[in-house]
Amino acid sequence: MPQDNAQPRACLVVHGPDADGLVAQITALVGTHGGSIVVLDQFTDPDRQQFFLRVEFTLKNFGQTQAALEKDFAAVLSPKSLTWQLTNMSQRKRMIVLASKSDHCLVELLWRHSRGELNVDIPMVISNHRDVEQAVKNFGIPFVHVPSAGPDKSAAEAEILRLTNNQADFLVLARYMQIISNEFLDKVGMPIINIHHSFLPAFIGASPYRKAKERGVKMIGATAHYVTAELDEGPIIEQDIARVTHVHSAAGMQERGQYVERAVLSRAVQWHAEDRVVRQGNHTIIFA
Amino acid sequence: MPQDNAQPRACLVVHGPDADGLVAQITALVGTHGGSIVVLDQFTDPDRQQFFLRVEFTLKNFGQTQAALEKDFAAVLSPKSLTWQLTNMSQRKRMIVLASKSDHCLVELLWRHSRGELNVDIPMVISNHRDVEQAVKNFGIPFVHVPSAGPDKSAAEAEILRLTNNQADFLVLARYMQIISNEFLDKVGMPIINIHHSFLPAFIGASPYRKAKERGVKMIGATAHYVTAELDEGPIIEQDIARVTHVHSAAGMQERGQYVERAVLSRAVQWHAEDRVVRQGNHTIIFA
Amino acid sequence: MPQDNAQPRACLVVHGPDADGLVAQITALVGTHGGSIVVLDQFTDPDRQQFFLRVEFTLKNFGQTQAALEKDFAAVLSPKSLTWQLTNMSQRKRMIVLASKSDHCLVELLWRHSRGELNVDIPMVISNHRDVEQAVKNFGIPFVHVPSAGPDKSAAEAEILRLTNNQADFLVLARYMQIISNEFLDKVGMPIINIHHSFLPAFIGASPYRKAKERGVKMIGATAHYVTAELDEGPIIEQDIARVTHVHSAAGMQERGQYVERAVLSRAVQWHAEDRVVRQGNHTIIFA
Amino acid sequence: MPQDNAQPRACLVVHGPDADGLVAQITALVGTHGGSIVVLDQFTDPDRQQFFLRVEFTLKNFGQTQAALEKDFAAVLSPKSLTWQLTNMSQRKRMIVLASKSDHCLVELLWRHSRGELNVDIPMVISNHRDVEQAVKNFGIPFVHVPSAGPDKSAAEAEILRLTNNQADFLVLARYMQIISNEFLDKVGMPIINIHHSFLPAFIGASPYRKAKERGVKMIGATAHYVTAELDEGPIIEQDIARVTHVHSAAGMQERGQYVERAVLSRAVQWHAEDRVVRQGNHTIIFA
Repeated sequence: MPQDNAQPRACLVVHGPDADGLVAQITALVGTHGGSIVVLDQFTDPDRQQFFLRVEFTLKNFGQTQAALEKDFAAVLSPKSLTWQLTNMSQRKRMIVLASKSDHCLVELLWRHSRGELNVDIPMVISNHRDVEQAVKNFGIPFVHVPSAGPDKSAAEAEILRLTNNQADFLVLARYMQIISNEFLDKVGMPIINIHHSFLPAFIGASPYRKAKERGVKMIGATAHYVTAELDEGPIIEQDIARVTHVHSAAGMQERGQYVERAVLSRAVQWHAEDRVVRQGNHTIIFA
Repeated sequence: MPQDNAQPRACLVVHGPDADGLVAQITALVGTHGGSIVVLDQFTDPDRQQFFLRVEFTLKNFGQTQAALEKDFAAVLSPKSLTWQLTNMSQRKRMIVLASKSDHCLVELLWRHSRGELNVDIPMVISNHRDVEQAVKNFGIPFVHVPSAGPDKSAAEAEILRLTNNQADFLVLARYMQIISNEFLDKVGMPIINIHHSFLPAFIGASPYRKAKERGVKMIGATAHYVTAELDEGPIIEQDIARVTHVHSAAGMQERGQYVERAVLSRAVQWHAEDRVVRQGNHTIIFA
Repeated sequence: MPQDNAQPRACLVVHGPDADGLVAQITALVGTHGGSIVVLDQFTDPDRQQFFLRVEFTLKNFGQTQAALEKDFAAVLSPKSLTWQLTNMSQRKRMIVLASKSDHCLVELLWRHSRGELNVDIPMVISNHRDVEQAVKNFGIPFVHVPSAGPDKSAAEAEILRLTNNQADFLVLARYMQIISNEFLDKVGMPIINIHHSFLPAFIGASPYRKAKERGVKMIGATAHYVTAELDEGPIIEQDIARVTHVHSAAGMQERGQYVERAVLSRAVQWHAEDRVVRQGNHTIIFA
Repeated sequence: MPQDNAQPRACLVVHGPDADGLVAQITALVGTHGGSIVVLDQFTDPDRQQFFLRVEFTLKNFGQTQAALEKDFAAVLSPKSLTWQLTNMSQRKRMIVLASKSDHCLVELLWRHSRGELNVDIPMVISNHRDVEQAVKNFGIPFVHVPSAGPDKSAAEAEILRLTNNQADFLVLARYMQIISNEFLDKVGMPIINIHHSFLPAFIGASPYRKAKERGVKMIGATAHYVTAELDEGPIIEQDIARVTHVHSAAGMQERGQYVERAVLSRAVQWHAEDRVVRQGNHTIIFA
């Protein structure tokens, strides 16, 4: 059907145990309510018999129809143990960014956002240092300083929980140099995306560029992943690499690597913001 | 639905004017006949309001059901001016390769085929030279020599038409150094894939590596495309590049470029063989 | 010899007709004056019998020694028609950036500069629009508005010549959307680096992303080159590409391409700033 | 100096403790003996104060001059504890390839060799299986079967030592699926290059593609390295990667990865054959 750019666009993501006729049932429901499919991607994992579907459709009066749609989707999908989520694509997700002293990933996100290239709202940036404060304010984004010096991080984490509660749909650690406690993860109630400055699982933990130099690798990388209780072990969203040579010191690798980090994190954030990432255990399915 | 590897798998490709409810109608038909969808990709071109869909599904007794399926698809799709094609994925397409003296693209295809990585049958290789004869025979593939010396290529083209008629589903020019006449194109009745040794549309025509050296580019490329009456202007299927520096002579660029050519052509052939390429005017939609 | 980071570092670049013993004579001179070579790259173009050499060396008291060194290099190299340049690497080149409304290339340069990653000083940014003024000032760099509306650009060009004269060692066109006249080129007396938003020589001229979409390419690119009298035909310094698919509109290609543009321009600027680019006719030799 | 392609070309590689005036002394010696430098690359590792130089030069009557040159290089370089090697580039290194059942890396090497693109002689291919015998013979290369079934590999290793002794300058393990014992390494007396099917140090050991699938990485890789006593820990020569998605099974990753493996191994072999790789501890300096 001819697309009307003025029409609201919805996104439905479904995943769970595979069953016969799912695509037909889901798309028929979309059609019954007057939706016009713009793009649909579907994948069945042959090893685990898991079904994954992402469909974007336009729908006049989506506001009024959404509740009825959700009721119908629930009736069809929930009995089959399928997980599903229907979002209004004109309502941008709210992303709060946590940073420390390093600004390359943070500025990249703010700059893409300011150009309208990142489909999110950014209610604030939180940092345990003031180094990035001016850069954040230059983009017109509120900056909140939450110091976390000393071994006990519980006060800082409590403050971050208070600030982010109901204010964000997901968090991004843009080279935030603090370990997130399991207590924080239990309470935060929203996904957290982190950027690790190595080609995981190589060089897990601290100082990956120094380790890369010591091992003599010919490529360095960066990895964006969801944060889980196990450090650097969460589901990988995106990775990329850059070539290095014997000429590069560990510091030179770091400088070069930062351009990979910011690109990888930006892609991961954008995909998450557009509901293109589906988590299955410790894996991700990316409809990009 | 749990996949049964023993079950036949079918592939349906549909494209044409967009209309409401197409995905639901098509997938419902698949379900009605007992098909289980394995993977589905759908895209609507917002500029041209064109609909593109590729779906793979398993279907017990596909042999008996195919005719009924086709009748139903025709009833639904043809009135809407949609073009569609239903193929049995266990029946491999037949590919005849045309080559000249250069063997890099040819051997790559034969080698991938011999490893079971290329989803085609190769009834024969045709060449206007004998240089590649032994290499072809080493792979157990019939070799046919069709000389085409002299300005008049009509006898050679007639012989190739005779050889390929009803023996192939598509042709591949693996660095076949003969211009294909419009008469041949009119008569051949099947798609022809060519590999051009440049990053089209840069360096159209002959001697692209020499031209690339003269222009001082920092990257060379290769382009696989369908052959049309306009030389080097057919729909592009795949492209890739390799870095070069001032150190590379035109011959060095050529040597390096051949590795790009063979990779690009192989990907294009595989996608075509698996019905992943849809032509729309002078463009391609790739479901890969 | 052990490097002393406190010691000044010099860079000598030599090119011209090849001759016997050049490397030995040049490096002996470096040694005679007490210089310690840190890195040396040499290349002889076999097609043109042209010699290219770049050597970095440390030298205590380079300030006092430079004149004597230059006298000796002149005595050895000039009679052989070799062109050479000796620079003090601790004296950064001055770069003036010209921009228009688009900020992606400009901000990337300013941001790298602010992090100490770009080995230049930036006396000012000149633009024919005020859109980028605040972004420039946020980096603490002077901004000068030189309007150039209307068909006659001579007043604007005269003003830019006045502003840049003796204030810069090279100019960068960071998506500066004005044609540079031959008169300007004759008078400016310093190299100008431009970023073209295509994989030259494909899509020369205006609207390359639109042309790329029309041609259906699978990759888009960007090219940094020196500006010459012939539009888009100057010596190429660097190129890179990004993959696109049928999903990308011309606008989507443009958005994606801007990340390639800014990376390519930054590399070209850095190489130029560090005397790593040698021009030979319409080619460049890159010692990077 | 104008190059004469008919003239022999020599390659000198020097590395060891940095000292003043090394480049001048070395290149003066080349000149004294009538050599004309074609390309010279030099690098000083600032962290370890180690000097690395590779120079190619043409020299009429290299056969008669070589001994005198070596005497002079020894007089200058050996007292400074510098390691050096002078090779006649027209004498190709002899490479013996060890393979098992998998042919992709092996065939790639043989095919490049047959095209004159790999600067080596191949006296034989040794395999513990007969699967690749015909492929090897098709290239006109002798094939030797050395079975190594059973836990005790000493007889097989002894036979390989006997076959390779004085018959090769280096060995290549082209997916040779046998652990090399330390005794073998002690006795073999020549470098061994291995290809590991992962982006080391990720996924060390067996089944890297399976591990990559389990970890959910978005890129797979391959690593060519010199074999040392510590498995998968030897100096890395070259690495590269390919993108994968959730669609790829472990087997699909393996199929895709094999194209990376063969390209990476070929580059490493070529660089080694042309004396472009210098080992320093567990690192490599690549002059490519």
